[in-house]
Parts: sequence; C-alpha cells; structure tokens
Amino acid sequence: MPINPDAVGATGAPVESNWTSKDALLYALGVGAGLDELAFTTENTTDTPQRVLPTMAVVLSQGGSAALGSIGTFNPAMLVHGGQAFELLGELPVGGTVSNEGTITAIYDKGSGALVVVDVISTDTSTGQPLFKNTTSIFLRGEGGWGGERGPAAEPGPPEREPDHTVAYATRPDQALLYRLSGDRNPLHSDPAFAALGGFDRPILHGLCSYGFTGRALLHSLCGSDPARFTGMAGRFAKPVFPGEELTIDAWVTGTGAAVFVTRGGDGRVVIDGGRCSFVA
Amino acid sequence: MPINPDAVGATGAPVESNWTSKDALLYALGVGAGLDELAFTTENTTDTPQRVLPTMAVVLSQGGSAALGSIGTFNPAMLVHGGQAFELLGELPVGGTVSNEGTITAIYDKGSGALVVVDVISTDTSTGQPLFKNTTSIFLRGEGGWGGERGPAAEPGPPEREPDHTVAYATRPDQALLYRLSGDRNPLHSDPAFAALGGFDRPILHGLCSYGFTGRALLHSLCGSDPARFTGMAGRFAKPVFPGEELTIDAWVTGTGAAVFVTRGGDGRVVIDGGRCSFVA
Repeated sequence: MPINPDAVGATGAPVESNWTSKDALLYALGVGAGLDELAFTTENTTDTPQRVLPTMAVVLSQGGSAALGSIGTFNPAMLVHGGQAFELLGELPVGGTVSNEGTITAIYDKGSGALVVVDVISTDTSTGQPLFKNTTSIFLRGEGGWGGERGPAAEPGPPEREPDHTVAYATRPDQALLYRLSGDRNPLHSDPAFAALGGFDRPILHGLCSYGFTGRALLHSLCGSDPARFTGMAGRFAKPVFPGEELTIDAWVTGTGAAVFVTRGGDGRVVIDGGRCSFVA
Repeated sequence: MPINPDAVGATGAPVESNWTSKDALLYALGVGAGLDELAFTTENTTDTPQRVLPTMAVVLSQGGSAALGSIGTFNPAMLVHGGQAFELLGELPVGGTVSNEGTITAIYDKGSGALVVVDVISTDTSTGQPLFKNTTSIFLRGEGGWGGERGPAAEPGPPEREPDHTVAYATRPDQALLYRLSGDRNPLHSDPAFAALGGFDRPILHGLCSYGFTGRALLHSLCGSDPARFTGMAGRFAKPVFPGEELTIDAWVTGTGAAVFVTRGGDGRVVIDGGRCSFVA
C-alpha cells in the first residue's frame, strides 16, 4: 500500500519525554561542548549555574513521530531525515518533562519521493504551557509521483558577502559513540558492517549531532552564549558528515534577530544548507 | 574528636547500586574506549555482543563507604584516595543490581596520617552471590601519631627488565567532564576555581579514570580483550594526572596469570605504582 497523501492534519497520541541535569550534560558533551563551556558541561562550577544548549529541544521531541502511523506503510530503510527546525518559547530548564504531540502538516510530491512535514508541540507538563516546537522534514524515497503539490522552493542561499561570523569545531573520530547516548542508537552511526550495507565506507555522524555543533556556534556567535536569547533554528541536511571531520559554520546577520547560516564539512562541501537562526538581538 | 583506631571490623549498612547497558557504555567512553572497542562502547554492533570493562566494578561499589561513619569525625578535605584494588568473581553483566556492604579491615598509623582500609563486598541481588570485591585505601592527613601499627610495607617495584607489554593512551583535555558522569562529581575534577583552592593550576583527572585507562591496557595486553579472563587489579595513586596527558602503562608478567604494572604520565613520572593484575592465562 502506498502512502496516503491525504493524511495531512493527522495527529499522533502524545508521548512524554523527560530529562535530567545529567542528560543535559551528556547531550552537551555529545555535540562537542567541553572545557570552555562549563555552564553546559557541569552542574557545580563556581558562579556558573548549569544551563541547557538550545538544540537539546530537538532530541526531547522524540515520540512525536507517532503521527507518521497515519500515512500508511513505507520502507523505513528508504527514510531520510531531510531537515529540522525548532522554536523555543522559553529557555530549556535543566530538567523536566514534556508531552510531545505530533501533527502531519504537509505531504509534498517531489517526484522521486514524498516529503512529509511533521510538527511536534512539546508542552511542559509542570506548567501546561508549550515550551518548544519542532518541525521535522522526512523524505521517503520512492514514494512520490502521485501528482501532488511539490511544495515551496528551497530557501534562498546566503548573501553574496563575507560571513559576519565563522566558527570551526573539530568533531572526534568517536563523536557518534558519545552523541548516540542522547537517544539515537541507529547502528548506521556506529557499526561499520551496518554502515557498509548503507553504502558508506564507515559509520556517518548523526545529522542532529552536526546540527548541535552548529547550534553551539550560533549560540556563541549570535547570542553572546546566552541560551535565553536563542529562539529558533532551521536547516536542511545536504550531505553526510563523517566523525572526525572539522565543521565550519558561517553565519550572516540578515536583520534584527535574524541570521542565515551554512555548515561545511572538512573538505568545504555544504553539509547543512537553508540555515536560519532567530535570536533576541 | 580524633578518629577511633578501634573501628576495625565495623560495617556499614548495605547500599544498593544498579547499572544499565547505557551506564556501561558511558563508563567505557569515560575511560577512553572508542572505535576500536565497540564491544564496550556499543550495544548493537554486528556479531559483537556488548560487554563491560572489568574496572567498572570500582564505580559500582559506591555507598560501601558507609562503614567510614564508625571511625569518628575527620575533615573530608584532608581525605586522599590512596589506592584501589578489586577482585571479580565473574564477568560483569551488562546491567544489574548489587548490594554493597563495607567493612573497615585495617587502620594504620602512618605518622603524618591514618591509612584506613575498607573492603566492600558487592552481591548480585538477582542471584544472592558475591560478584566482586573492592578494597579502598583512604589516607586521612593529620590523623596519625597515636602509636598504632604502620601496616605492611609497600609492594616491591617491577622487575629490572624491559616490560612485556607497553600501551600508551591519550587522555582528552575534557576527559574528566565525561568520566564524572559515571558518578564522581567532585568539582576538583571540573571547576578551575575549586581546583585552585586545592592548590592545582587546573582541575585534575579522577584517579579512578586513570585506573580505568590502565585496566583497558591490561585487558587488551594480558587478557586478549576478554573481560571474562580479567580477575583482579590493584594499584596505588602516586601522583595526580592532568586531563590531556598521555598515559603509558608498562606491564610485566611475573607468573601464570599474574602481572605487575606501572602507569606513567606524559612526562614519565609514575602516577600509579604498586600495580598488580590477576588474570586467567
């Protein structure tokens, strides 16, 4: 049975997700924070209260994909994580519980496949208020061609001028082994034999790990390292990254509290494009 | 009130300690295991069942120090972790619960301080059988001089010949930030201001982290990387290690299933001495 393009509007049952101070420390280390970011990597440093990296909102939205059940059956091996956006309605607390409810907001026919867009609203169970919203774009290879809408064109690229900020971060050869402890245990990121089945010489880094490194660069360069000023981020996964590659993030401020960015791999190829960041200027 | 040298034989109430597959992965990464040790750093690698590093027995004995309560009051800032030994009665399972019961087995008068030896027996609550035993030597500066026994002399040094095995491992500048997630959150290992109060230019690595690196070296060089063959280890913490230093472990096989070892820091100074390892040859 092919996918059902009329599943737009379908929701999934809410799924709770909780996190502790330790989870936040582990996430921060997983996306490369270290000695220079003790607010994110320790909970008991003198005069440095623990804070949470904004991009952790992405891993806390897990379970929201329950909405995908309504689009029919598809081959999970053909699923590609196309892009990820999130908006923060407040700074992430050091620990808490959210209830995640997902809704399919669009299904586009890209010809070679279907692009399914799922919004997940995460509500803080202690206050009943929404705390953050994720938008995940999932590309299902081989599921297109039903004559549906193609959807919006790609975001325009960055301005034709030098970036306002450039940040380079090393990733470690074993970066994925650490990042995966924040939840995504797909062996594509750790098992050489499994990665070979997927056509890769070795395991690839999680797209959301590169995304987390990118978020750190944006936090420090655009928000003065203050997570309360970081309000949102979006990007499209253009190419895989291998653990051990250096990531370089170029950011251009395009308006008050608005920037675009591009993340490149060690050889200069673009690995995240269509990058947008919103912040309190 | 000074310490009570007659507290030998005192026991503490049992304390339970439990661990999961994830805890074992985090511990392995914390003591430097990576891409070459997927049996210890992943749970779902093809044809590679997860196993647990033998030295994890040390961090699982937590709570056993309840016995220390019977020796009277002392200044915890004057406490130094002098040495650590453990014996495994079977391979550590990937997850489980142990009940830890500590007994003070000796209190020696070293003049400048007291050396308190605590044995902790850890019983697998699922079988009722002892699974491992730790012996922790704690030096209490300023608590000696009551005219008590000095205790046994230090173990003899290694043989006067080239070691049979030499293994060098890099530690990372942020190694302690990762290792501390396995339980010991003492800011001496993470907070520069706190470390300065202790007289250190920067935070020092956990002694038990260097001990874990050393255990990996012994596991791979003496036991063919098979944790079922690793039955015990002992060592004395001679000098602090700074995160980012290279550790070099020299091991000499001294008999069937017996070896001695020395761990050195980046400048060649001995950081763990009196090293002993027992294994199934």
